[in-house]
Amino acid sequence: MALSLRTRLYVSAPLTAGAFVDLTPEQVHYLRNVLRLSAGVEVALFNGKDGEWLGRIAELGKDKGQIEAIRQLREQRGAPDIWLLFAPIKRQGIDLVAEKASELGASVIWPIMTRHTDVARVNTERLTANAIEAAEQSERMEVPEVREPVDLPKLLDGWPADRPIIVCAEIGDASPIASVIQALPAGPAAILIGPEGGFAQSELDMVLARPYARPARLGPRILRAETAAFAALTTWMVLKGDWAN
Amino acid sequence: MALSLRTRLYVSAPLTAGAFVDLTPEQVHYLRNVLRLSAGVEVALFNGKDGEWLGRIAELGKDKGQIEAIRQLREQRGAPDIWLLFAPIKRQGIDLVAEKASELGASVIWPIMTRHTDVARVNTERLTANAIEAAEQSERMEVPEVREPVDLPKLLDGWPADRPIIVCAEIGDASPIASVIQALPAGPAAILIGPEGGFAQSELDMVLARPYARPARLGPRILRAETAAFAALTTWMVLKGDWAN
Repeated sequence: MALSLRTRLYVSAPLTAGAFVDLTPEQVHYLRNVLRLSAGVEVALFNGKDGEWLGRIAELGKDKGQIEAIRQLREQRGAPDIWLLFAPIKRQGIDLVAEKASELGASVIWPIMTRHTDVARVNTERLTANAIEAAEQSERMEVPEVREPVDLPKLLDGWPADRPIIVCAEIGDASPIASVIQALPAGPAAILIGPEGGFAQSELDMVLARPYARPARLGPRILRAETAAFAALTTWMVLKGDWAN
Repeated sequence: MALSLRTRLYVSAPLTAGAFVDLTPEQVHYLRNVLRLSAGVEVALFNGKDGEWLGRIAELGKDKGQIEAIRQLREQRGAPDIWLLFAPIKRQGIDLVAEKASELGASVIWPIMTRHTDVARVNTERLTANAIEAAEQSERMEVPEVREPVDLPKLLDGWPADRPIIVCAEIGDASPIASVIQALPAGPAAILIGPEGGFAQSELDMVLARPYARPARLGPRILRAETAAFAALTTWMVLKGDWAN
């Protein structure tokens, strides 16, 4: 019987032995027309709660399909608790941010609207699809939560004080990001990446006045917003996340 | 007089006060048709040797143009000495690697052919163009050298023994990349990223038998080749490169 365990699907249904999981139309199309799989083939399933499961395609019709969950392959394990807050950028860049943030292990991806953000609408459905695809391919056990865009002042008003924000912006006396992250206590954190045009001074003042703000410098070169996001996430992962073990 | 100092151009000619620098046809097109600049406008110039210069467009015709070097803005400074060796991947990925490696500060970008590399030809001219554009935008003072592709065995035969290679591959007992990099002496280093299909076992044995090889693990998730390249470069920069200061 054909085995395609590298094919991993994120599903929302609970996974227990013998459960039949309905596929979305996109998943049916992907399995049937892109991968050319058929009933009987084994794939991997995960839902972010019940670990990774071996599944077998029970039905794969033109419009619908079902996978039977056979047995658990890996137990669910805790994921790093790091949020990525970033001002939306043009389409290619924002798609890349969602994809790479998911691969690198972010738990939340949250678009933040700022004064100099020149993107009016964010397609969070498309970002979610990118994040799911990257999670499937990277063998993650969960999918990052893509939140609806929020204005910066509103974000700060409801901010949980026990989650420091690593603020990546051009700030004169900011410390290098590695020192900033090394000095953080263990626990949840967030990374804030400004828009390509930079934060407005009033915004920066507002953020840096918060006790949980930690201004950080990403080296002597100017990074594009998406590169800054990858670099900050990586630095957190290697120093405080699950890359350190 | 209009000033467009954020417009930075990489040129190959020496930069001294009063020197006239010929523009390439691509630069003429970019300044004239994309940015719509004209004679008299000031831009920044760098050539990787003489620092950054203030220049003034002396002539900008349909097919040719010249910029006069006025005065030095910044002295040339030493750049981090980190080479990125990577197995070529599909076009979109390889372009992104050249762009981001340049932004992040790599000094050499070197495509390495391996058994499981399924890309037969590498357009190093296009990679160079990407690296130059990223260097111009990131305010770098030099452009990474893009080398012609070489087979892995040949690469190792001529390898300078004082340059450790951080080998990013799925290797059972590799240490976390942050520990590997922290343990390196100060000085030159290289990062080797395997192909999407992984190294052949014989290749891995060949690399790891060298005394300068340092196997490193990039966390518990599976990263795409380009993501692994960004992450490894970032980790080196924050721990050993010029992001630490």
